[in-house]
Amino acid sequence: MTDAIDAEAGPVLALCGGIGGAKLALGLYRVLDPDRLTIAVNTGDDFEHLGLHISPDLDTVLYTLAGCSNIETGWGRADETWTFMSVLSTLGGEDWFKLGDGDLALHIERTRRLKSGQSLSEISETFRRRLGVSARIVPMSDDPVQTVLHTADGPLAFQHYFVRDRCRHVIRRIGFEGAERARSNPLLMETLDDPNLRAVVICPSNPYLSVDPILALPKFREALEACAAPVVAVSPIVHGDAVKGPTAKIMRELGVPRNNAAIARHYGALIDGLVLDKADVAEIDAITIPTIATSTVMMDLEDRINLAQAVLAFATRLDTRGKPGARADSGTGR
Amino acid sequence: MTDAIDAEAGPVLALCGGIGGAKLALGLYRVLDPDRLTIAVNTGDDFEHLGLHISPDLDTVLYTLAGCSNIETGWGRADETWTFMSVLSTLGGEDWFKLGDGDLALHIERTRRLKSGQSLSEISETFRRRLGVSARIVPMSDDPVQTVLHTADGPLAFQHYFVRDRCRHVIRRIGFEGAERARSNPLLMETLDDPNLRAVVICPSNPYLSVDPILALPKFREALEACAAPVVAVSPIVHGDAVKGPTAKIMRELGVPRNNAAIARHYGALIDGLVLDKADVAEIDAITIPTIATSTVMMDLEDRINLAQAVLAFATRLDTRGKPGARADSGTGR
Repeated sequence: MTDAIDAEAGPVLALCGGIGGAKLALGLYRVLDPDRLTIAVNTGDDFEHLGLHISPDLDTVLYTLAGCSNIETGWGRADETWTFMSVLSTLGGEDWFKLGDGDLALHIERTRRLKSGQSLSEISETFRRRLGVSARIVPMSDDPVQTVLHTADGPLAFQHYFVRDRCRHVIRRIGFEGAERARSNPLLMETLDDPNLRAVVICPSNPYLSVDPILALPKFREALEACAAPVVAVSPIVHGDAVKGPTAKIMRELGVPRNNAAIARHYGALIDGLVLDKADVAEIDAITIPTIATSTVMMDLEDRINLAQAVLAFATRLDTRGKPGARADSGTGR
Repeated sequence: MTDAIDAEAGPVLALCGGIGGAKLALGLYRVLDPDRLTIAVNTGDDFEHLGLHISPDLDTVLYTLAGCSNIETGWGRADETWTFMSVLSTLGGEDWFKLGDGDLALHIERTRRLKSGQSLSEISETFRRRLGVSARIVPMSDDPVQTVLHTADGPLAFQHYFVRDRCRHVIRRIGFEGAERARSNPLLMETLDDPNLRAVVICPSNPYLSVDPILALPKFREALEACAAPVVAVSPIVHGDAVKGPTAKIMRELGVPRNNAAIARHYGALIDGLVLDKADVAEIDAITIPTIATSTVMMDLEDRINLAQAVLAFATRLDTRGKPGARADSGTGR
């Protein structure tokens, strides 16, 4: 990338699910003044397991930005031990969801704090500060929202579909229970309302499972629609498949073509630009909004940083003067 | 010991707290047909910590009999890892009570089962079977009883006194909140009512903190008083001090002489015989009930087995014909 990134520029809001999204969030974190990065994280996959409140996406983003994520597995912590799981199995406990010994500390301490009356936001704020993360990692809502997969075999909570049953069910519809009533996180609403907001980046998380729960919050969606800043999505689809996870399988089951145009259509008027992988450069012509092709497959930290820079530069070049709420002096060439 | 132990004889009930008691419980477990050993365990030290129900004495007895206790620390599991505690400290969680990663599995699974409606007895039964223990490890009650130390600095729950504050407060009185209303475990009542009951052994646990909570259950105490079988206590005091723990300190603070006669007086009419250490053989004359001196300091498994044999042989020799509920044909020389 030749575009210079002005780390001093206005704040950036990233929308993020788990593993794929967290990679770009890390890139943004390294490129931006970290005080100016706010990450809205999906909590639709949160669930109670063994009496503990588990927030898989919040933890993945936290571990990734704190530099203690497990690079090999893509989830959980580095240098983890597994004594708890081993004894739990001996006791006949439910052992399909692997909880590392260190990981467990977050679930136990989070559950304890929730019971003592703290909000998920307050807890996330404490945790990220304790782990030395300067960017704000913000749950999309402090109210419960539950992603439910309506499959050919009946409704399933996300983790049961994804982890326990390894995505084997055919999805017919995806619901976000509680989203209609859930309050969007005020921190995110403030960020969206910030006249200096530089860009909103939809990370390459699963649009249907990880980003849609955030967009299902009525006030958040409304504020995003009204937001003057450029909104850029990074497509998780490369060559008709997803780098990781069940995105492509779900697209097939939902009857959606597995290409980047489908991703652009999915986000529709919410986004001002799309970033797709250079392997799919031929697909650009089929997409009706501004689109760039770059390397979106993030193997190492350099890839993450490069993609973050490309996305921010693209957002800066986008002409958003026609957007609702845009000021007369905003727009291209900043 | 020259007395032969008849493993086929009637059942034995042991009353037990944590570490010291569990050592003799293990000796009894190795000497007796394990199906005939029932261990009544103190739950007055149970507490909720980090949202988890922790039963320290039940776990110590379970780990000891399952052969997975940590011999060096005297508490917790062998081959333990500590990743959870390390991360919990990083998060600013309460870390004064050390919970090993494997140990945590019991607390989490127990808490989950309690919330799902299982009783502490049912859970203890599942756990001991899962860990391959044949003797019955029975919580004194399924109702909550809380040992409260009334100290010069105010009331304290047992673990706060014992672990967090390292017994530094001066004890004035010890209370067992809830004991008056708590139902004695029916399994223990059945055992006490069994006409074939061979002996009740009060293990060398702290009489004031670990055995008294069991004896504070009105129906249990009543049944023990009415029980025809010999009741033998093993004194935890050797040479005016306790092998481990705050027994001697508490006796001093309660104004009780630190000797075996004081232990005998403490149990009073409940016991038919006392076992003290051979180092204190000179104290026997001051004790008004049948007493034997043997080695009560249990350093290794052989010590535990030897003491168990000595205690059972002593109980067998005791003349309990005069006890309430004693049958005409019961008594010595069985």
